[in-house]
Amino acid sequence: MVLVSGGLDSTVCLAVAAAEGQTGRPLVALTFDYGQRHAVELVRAAAVASHYGAEPLVVRLETSAWGGSALTDPRVAVPEPAAEAGAGIPATYVPARNLIFLAVAMGVAEARDLDVVSLGVNALDYSGYPDCRPEFVASFAGTARLALKRGVEGRPVEIRTPLIDKTKAEIVGLGMSLGAPLELTWSCYRGEGKPCGRCDSCELRARGFAHAGVEDPALAGD
Amino acid sequence: MVLVSGGLDSTVCLAVAAAEGQTGRPLVALTFDYGQRHAVELVRAAAVASHYGAEPLVVRLETSAWGGSALTDPRVAVPEPAAEAGAGIPATYVPARNLIFLAVAMGVAEARDLDVVSLGVNALDYSGYPDCRPEFVASFAGTARLALKRGVEGRPVEIRTPLIDKTKAEIVGLGMSLGAPLELTWSCYRGEGKPCGRCDSCELRARGFAHAGVEDPALAGD
Repeated sequence: MVLVSGGLDSTVCLAVAAAEGQTGRPLVALTFDYGQRHAVELVRAAAVASHYGAEPLVVRLETSAWGGSALTDPRVAVPEPAAEAGAGIPATYVPARNLIFLAVAMGVAEARDLDVVSLGVNALDYSGYPDCRPEFVASFAGTARLALKRGVEGRPVEIRTPLIDKTKAEIVGLGMSLGAPLELTWSCYRGEGKPCGRCDSCELRARGFAHAGVEDPALAGD
Repeated sequence: MVLVSGGLDSTVCLAVAAAEGQTGRPLVALTFDYGQRHAVELVRAAAVASHYGAEPLVVRLETSAWGGSALTDPRVAVPEPAAEAGAGIPATYVPARNLIFLAVAMGVAEARDLDVVSLGVNALDYSGYPDCRPEFVASFAGTARLALKRGVEGRPVEIRTPLIDKTKAEIVGLGMSLGAPLELTWSCYRGEGKPCGRCDSCELRARGFAHAGVEDPALAGD
């Protein structure tokens, strides 16, 4: 199972899982509908899953019920990067997001007897989110082993983070080499229709493609 | 914030939190609507929260979307205790339940700047669930510290488990001494209307009251 958001990283993560070969079972693409500002993410996630013939599983989370992030709370503005320079954890941080996503992923994996969960977090060129750091993922894996029946039985669910130590440029390069459908991916924190080009996420993405020496296929025709 | 299920343990946990005194802010009673077989649990949870003047917050989780437990999947039967004697983890185990509940609780706590999350897990007289063990809770607290902005800032959300080392009889005794509304609580895995008296949870509860030398007020009038 791969956590698929419709963004660049999770798409490359899915490409890695697809390339790693056949378990005889189709991949499951787990997508969270957590009140993101833009439904475009869900559409892109479905398109990416479909590209790989993965079974789509969309789980709705009422993150907006408790708010606290620019990404899920309409009262919090998505910041301009300049406003945040050096500010540490940005306003687009969603409290406990990867903790919740991984927890649910463990429930699904155990219920369906899936052995591996992959997610596309990366600690380099990341956006300052604490729950993208390798020490968080490693600690989570240990906690999950204690929480799950499978862990008690000595068959813990393996958590893979194939992109954890890659730069955005390396992720772009890896995606291109695997033929990942990067033209389907969406990174912008803002607009619909076309990316704003100014938010943190757009900037990171643009830099990644520039350093990889590749044109962003999602911007083709602009 | 207290995780409130409408059951005996979480009600006593809420009583402990209420007795611990005033932070100047009302308690939040966090209840999960995760597709339990019986809506009676949600009704009782709301009644208990109301008894303590706690702000009720119900978060819906689509646990049934992935199934895998007798408590959330209508295709899995609630077992008779005899059928499970010595069987280890029972069919009423819900994959990753407390992992998911605590993960969401961390998101809520951080979004609302709440300092303490209490839950009524206990490791003695428990039902064989791995995610009720103290080692799980301790590990989770460490993982949450790494996941949350608050943790990075040196203000981790404190997780309290005041019942972790208590027997069911001690929990009953504590609840009575605190004047907890045990008559409002619901433990049965099965029926509506009145408890079946035969499932694991009914048996544990009955034994607890018996050992405490107290009549179960929820059965008054039977």
